[in-house]
Amino acid sequence: MIYYETLSADDLKNEIEALEKRYNAFKEQKLKLDMTRGKPCSEQLDICMDMLDIPAKELRKACDGTDCFNYGVLDGLPEAKALFAEMLEVNTNEIIIGGNSSLNLMYDTIARAMSLGVMGGTPWSKLEKVKFLCPSPGYDRHFAICELFGIEMIVIDMKQDGPDMDAIEKLVSEDETIKGVWCVPKYSNPDGITYSDEVVNRFAALNPKANDFRIFWDNAYCVHHLSDKPDMLKNILTACKEAGNENMVYIFASTSKISFPGAGVAVMASSVDNINSIKKSLTIQTIGHDKINQLRHVKYFKDVDGITLHMKKHAAILKPKFDMVLDILEKELGGKEIASWNKPNGGYFISLNTLDNCAQEVAKLAQEAGVALTKAGATYPYGKDPRDKNIRIAPTMPPVEELKKAIEIFAICIQLVSAKKFLK
Amino acid sequence: MIYYETLSADDLKNEIEALEKRYNAFKEQKLKLDMTRGKPCSEQLDICMDMLDIPAKELRKACDGTDCFNYGVLDGLPEAKALFAEMLEVNTNEIIIGGNSSLNLMYDTIARAMSLGVMGGTPWSKLEKVKFLCPSPGYDRHFAICELFGIEMIVIDMKQDGPDMDAIEKLVSEDETIKGVWCVPKYSNPDGITYSDEVVNRFAALNPKANDFRIFWDNAYCVHHLSDKPDMLKNILTACKEAGNENMVYIFASTSKISFPGAGVAVMASSVDNINSIKKSLTIQTIGHDKINQLRHVKYFKDVDGITLHMKKHAAILKPKFDMVLDILEKELGGKEIASWNKPNGGYFISLNTLDNCAQEVAKLAQEAGVALTKAGATYPYGKDPRDKNIRIAPTMPPVEELKKAIEIFAICIQLVSAKKFLK
Repeated sequence: MIYYETLSADDLKNEIEALEKRYNAFKEQKLKLDMTRGKPCSEQLDICMDMLDIPAKELRKACDGTDCFNYGVLDGLPEAKALFAEMLEVNTNEIIIGGNSSLNLMYDTIARAMSLGVMGGTPWSKLEKVKFLCPSPGYDRHFAICELFGIEMIVIDMKQDGPDMDAIEKLVSEDETIKGVWCVPKYSNPDGITYSDEVVNRFAALNPKANDFRIFWDNAYCVHHLSDKPDMLKNILTACKEAGNENMVYIFASTSKISFPGAGVAVMASSVDNINSIKKSLTIQTIGHDKINQLRHVKYFKDVDGITLHMKKHAAILKPKFDMVLDILEKELGGKEIASWNKPNGGYFISLNTLDNCAQEVAKLAQEAGVALTKAGATYPYGKDPRDKNIRIAPTMPPVEELKKAIEIFAICIQLVSAKKFLK
Repeated sequence: MIYYETLSADDLKNEIEALEKRYNAFKEQKLKLDMTRGKPCSEQLDICMDMLDIPAKELRKACDGTDCFNYGVLDGLPEAKALFAEMLEVNTNEIIIGGNSSLNLMYDTIARAMSLGVMGGTPWSKLEKVKFLCPSPGYDRHFAICELFGIEMIVIDMKQDGPDMDAIEKLVSEDETIKGVWCVPKYSNPDGITYSDEVVNRFAALNPKANDFRIFWDNAYCVHHLSDKPDMLKNILTACKEAGNENMVYIFASTSKISFPGAGVAVMASSVDNINSIKKSLTIQTIGHDKINQLRHVKYFKDVDGITLHMKKHAAILKPKFDMVLDILEKELGGKEIASWNKPNGGYFISLNTLDNCAQEVAKLAQEAGVALTKAGATYPYGKDPRDKNIRIAPTMPPVEELKKAIEIFAICIQLVSAKKFLK
């Protein structure tokens, strides 16, 4: 039962008055708090700083003798392929090392499909209609790529163990214009959930009507644990192979939130056939990506154990922030039945659902008190949350003291907006 | 008069015999000499090595306070824009700092035009036919992009001061399907010539039938002088503005052959309208390029004088190689009227024309003696040199002693192939 429904009219008025008092006290502080994007905080960036002090002479020769200061090597240094293949649990011939941005790799993959088609298929731009399935809430930058290229987006509900697979199975098997689905399978953006083995198996066993249907598996948070008991994600490429669908998935990842956002190494993994097909046009697009930065990352992390160890340092900084947010939410909103949220084991976000038709108002009210949240609706295709209830909290970037204030204000706003709904 | 025409049948046979003897002597050495690509040599890469030893702490904060270790900054750091705007003689709001590859920027520009159109125009992929003008001999990687996207290429002859402008003016004014022209205006690839002011002015004053016609001005060798009296190239963007055509040109450059090929900084310059239009989709493609590497370059070079000084070190290494090649060509081929070539003031190539229908045979013969040349025909669209006479010499990469042998073998091959044409 929603807390405000249990109150008398007078008690409700008093409650709102008390909330407004707290709200205005914060407002008077003229704060400027930013929780819009999932950016690492300054302390996180400190821990990787010494990677940039590896001497130049150690960055020159790759293990196969390649001069990393010169042109060449389209798909990545052997040692970079080995490191990131291990991280993604794929073979070294199933990976391409890209530039500094996995988003750019995803964009390129869609752009290539639009102009050139997928593995010899008709270029998507030549088709009357192209659709993508968009498990939502999801990542706004995925949806923005679709919107730019005129790809129609279909919202798929998210459940506690992944997207609604009944809906996905039905749609892809019936509709040839559905060419892809966006997934953030581990510590999902924004829900923070990890797809169950069953969900992964059902993805791998899809029987799409379109031959050139692909799963865009953005494993952005593959090693980004907050807990000592991290979630386990079943390997999608292995599952696809077992199901006889090995060409159906593109996997993406990067070190943006491992080393440096914007100066890390992005990677893409897929079947050998897909990789070879991509390389045919990639070789026209570029001579090769930044090998010096690849070697820098390999020298620094050495192997996946090195990455795992490094990620514990990130977790040590982030865990207290997530805990604090969850504590305040519980303290302010717990038991009131006016909001629900997840307690993620990793990733960069806490996703919160308000009562229906409250999210935009909450975000507006928070903004007026100096707290910038990710735009309400941003987690849905076209920025339209059908029930106007999802808000993505990005607790990583602000310093602890700022974050504390921001979340308190945010929680007050949720209570205010909800309470007013019940005022007769 | 061609030398071999002046010889008696016996003298010609003796000549060929002597050449074959020299050729076979080289062949027996089982050499493996590579002149296929315009790559810097190892000594050139040494001179920039200390850029990579700039301490991490100096690479963190940009002049405007931006944390270069974190996400953000779509179009480049202010100081990077300032440096490269100065290098290209444009304003800081007329430039975008890209990733590690200007080829990738050019590819993206074509890909964007194909999928999304140019400044609101119809996407080129929706048109029945798209054509590009290709001054030839030219850069094979430009032509490869067109071929990949199914853009029909029209060969335009190169003259001593640039492309045949009569032909270009006529074609673009009559044919709406012509959407672009490839140019390497300074120390051109492969001819090594610099466009005259008149040619630049005529480009700027073009009156294309297609509104979305663009000049792709690949100023790859803008500061790559071999002489103390460098060629001067008129500023195309200024010329376009003066002619009322300011949106007609895209300019590209990179530090690939200034700092590190594959780990440098690529840039693109154009009118403010074009730049703003590009940024609208670039912001969907990526959050930003590698700011740490941008700052590294700015700290190292400081300003254009720093780049100019640095390029003198490259010239000191390259000039003797170019001189040696030209000396051997003159000694072996001079006055024989069987080959012609330029003496470039900068850039990375010497372009040589044999007699008609000899280039492929020369390349094959050289290959058999262990000298790999850029594939004959590669300097023309579709790899088809209509008169089969152009060969691109890339003298930068091989060590001097290897280069000497390679060019001598190459010159012997030209004489052999030519002489045999006159054998009755």
